[in-house]
Amino acid sequence: MPKNMVRNIVTIGGGTGSYMLLSGLKKLPNVNLTAIVPSTDSGGSSGRLRDEFGFLPPGDIRQCLVSLAEDDEEQYLLRNIFSYRFDKGEEGLKGHTFGNLFLTVLTEVIGDELKAIEKAEKLLNIKGHVYPITLDKTVLCAKYSNGSVIESEHNIDEPSYPHDGRLRIEELYLKPESKTYKKVIDSILEADAIVIGPGDLYTSIIANLVVEGVKKPFKKTKAKIFYVLNLVTKFGQTWGFSASDHVNEIAKYLGRYPDYVIINQNDLPKDILKKYIEQNDDVVLDDLNNFPNLLKKVKILRGDFLAKETIKTQKGDKLVRSLIRHDSDKLAKVIYEQLNSKD
Amino acid sequence: MPKNMVRNIVTIGGGTGSYMLLSGLKKLPNVNLTAIVPSTDSGGSSGRLRDEFGFLPPGDIRQCLVSLAEDDEEQYLLRNIFSYRFDKGEEGLKGHTFGNLFLTVLTEVIGDELKAIEKAEKLLNIKGHVYPITLDKTVLCAKYSNGSVIESEHNIDEPSYPHDGRLRIEELYLKPESKTYKKVIDSILEADAIVIGPGDLYTSIIANLVVEGVKKPFKKTKAKIFYVLNLVTKFGQTWGFSASDHVNEIAKYLGRYPDYVIINQNDLPKDILKKYIEQNDDVVLDDLNNFPNLLKKVKILRGDFLAKETIKTQKGDKLVRSLIRHDSDKLAKVIYEQLNSKD
Repeated sequence: MPKNMVRNIVTIGGGTGSYMLLSGLKKLPNVNLTAIVPSTDSGGSSGRLRDEFGFLPPGDIRQCLVSLAEDDEEQYLLRNIFSYRFDKGEEGLKGHTFGNLFLTVLTEVIGDELKAIEKAEKLLNIKGHVYPITLDKTVLCAKYSNGSVIESEHNIDEPSYPHDGRLRIEELYLKPESKTYKKVIDSILEADAIVIGPGDLYTSIIANLVVEGVKKPFKKTKAKIFYVLNLVTKFGQTWGFSASDHVNEIAKYLGRYPDYVIINQNDLPKDILKKYIEQNDDVVLDDLNNFPNLLKKVKILRGDFLAKETIKTQKGDKLVRSLIRHDSDKLAKVIYEQLNSKD
Repeated sequence: MPKNMVRNIVTIGGGTGSYMLLSGLKKLPNVNLTAIVPSTDSGGSSGRLRDEFGFLPPGDIRQCLVSLAEDDEEQYLLRNIFSYRFDKGEEGLKGHTFGNLFLTVLTEVIGDELKAIEKAEKLLNIKGHVYPITLDKTVLCAKYSNGSVIESEHNIDEPSYPHDGRLRIEELYLKPESKTYKKVIDSILEADAIVIGPGDLYTSIIANLVVEGVKKPFKKTKAKIFYVLNLVTKFGQTWGFSASDHVNEIAKYLGRYPDYVIINQNDLPKDILKKYIEQNDDVVLDDLNNFPNLLKKVKILRGDFLAKETIKTQKGDKLVRSLIRHDSDKLAKVIYEQLNSKD
């Protein structure tokens, strides 16, 4: 592949994971980016607007739009406005992210969810596109190892008593079943690289893979498929999960293994790790070398992918704060290297 | 004055009156428009945001910005978004106009009220400027003929029981006193024409004239000063007011008579008039010819200035619906003619 050819890179995920990843990928030369996000977010500002207006939840779309926006002065202001969160004002206003309201009003005025996203792409002068995985109104459901079922994304994301956060999700599914948006299928087919994750394994990542019709283009595509492993487990979703647990879950829902797994080897700062452990979370254990069959299918890319700065607070939609992140440039670099290699 | 010279036209007012007027004036060739609006709006979406964020009330600013925006397709969408009013959703969201939220968030992000307005002017690609009459936080107060006092703009605008809507306002004032914004003074001094009204006489028009320091530039300016008389009286502010009552009130607060008074002579549709009369309102009686001294100071411009279409509902900040309006093009035409005449 000639070096100056435009490469189509597709990301699959949501929330701050995709935000971080896209921030790095957009700096690569000659790339055309497409961000695919779940349509099942039901918490926070997104969930409230979804309930009231009946549109797609705007939060993940908004985060990807902002991430893809240019970094110049003009866009910097618009990005900040889009990401602004009302932390005062009346109850019905408080907690809303302005970009979510913006997307909602755009949809109301234009009368079409997809055209509203396109319009926002133009206003923010972004490279690439953001697509919801499905246009159907659907609810994410999880069946756990004890047979219990939890419905709605935010209930799965933040399971509350009596739900035990250590239970494994045996089956993630949508109710009702819903179809993959056509442009998502096209993007997967035309991609040179598809990057899955990082992000909440079930509510941000696999939520995209349980939509009807998404596995087929994944089998057909010539794209190199990357999976970026999370740095830490998440109580309620991936408690006690090792690296192979993550990879096997992705393969189960994707219908195939990714070509590459990117896993951080750098140690987390001890004080940060302590905070995670206090919340029942821990570093994702790298057990991949114990599975020779898996290693035949997947190339493991190990390295230092840790951001130097830890994040103190986060103005996202989620209540849980991310204390440590991947470094977006380091991830972009390793992906770009593989994209240019002959493997 | 050569015909191709740029003319500075300043409007003084607020709400739908200024919106209508500016829509016509912006179509004139070679004009530079400045809209001056009160800083004392305390009702509806504006008042709620003012209370919660402590910024200038955005409603009048927003309406003038939207009115001054270009009419092309791109701006048309932004205008619609700015004027969009949440009529569903949670209580704290409902009733807010999106443009008001936008201005509030811009101010929060930029950290400066004036720079936020400038930024909005750029985003909407508007010709001209919108200036608040004062940057000071102040409250509009009215002392009535029976000695009673009502504080806060929306209480004056929509007086409730036991306030009698037929009482005359003896004195309108600000508490605390506040200073005219410097750019307002400059605009008045540099104006070729200043158009006062139409609009609610006290809460939209005179609210601008009670600010400290505004009379002086009005005495110095070489601008032709126009006053556009309202079509109908308003119970609670101008019940039973004739044309001369209006003009004399303007002169009292302005410290001088306007050069021109524009008064509609066309009959209001009978069914519409009936609705006004049911609400204790009526056509403004043209009694100006009874006052020879007034006629020496003021040139009366009579004609058909009525919009052909009546307005059924209005998505403004005010609860009271305007059923009849001035025609913006007819007003612009008569003003432009006088501006080019040698009188």
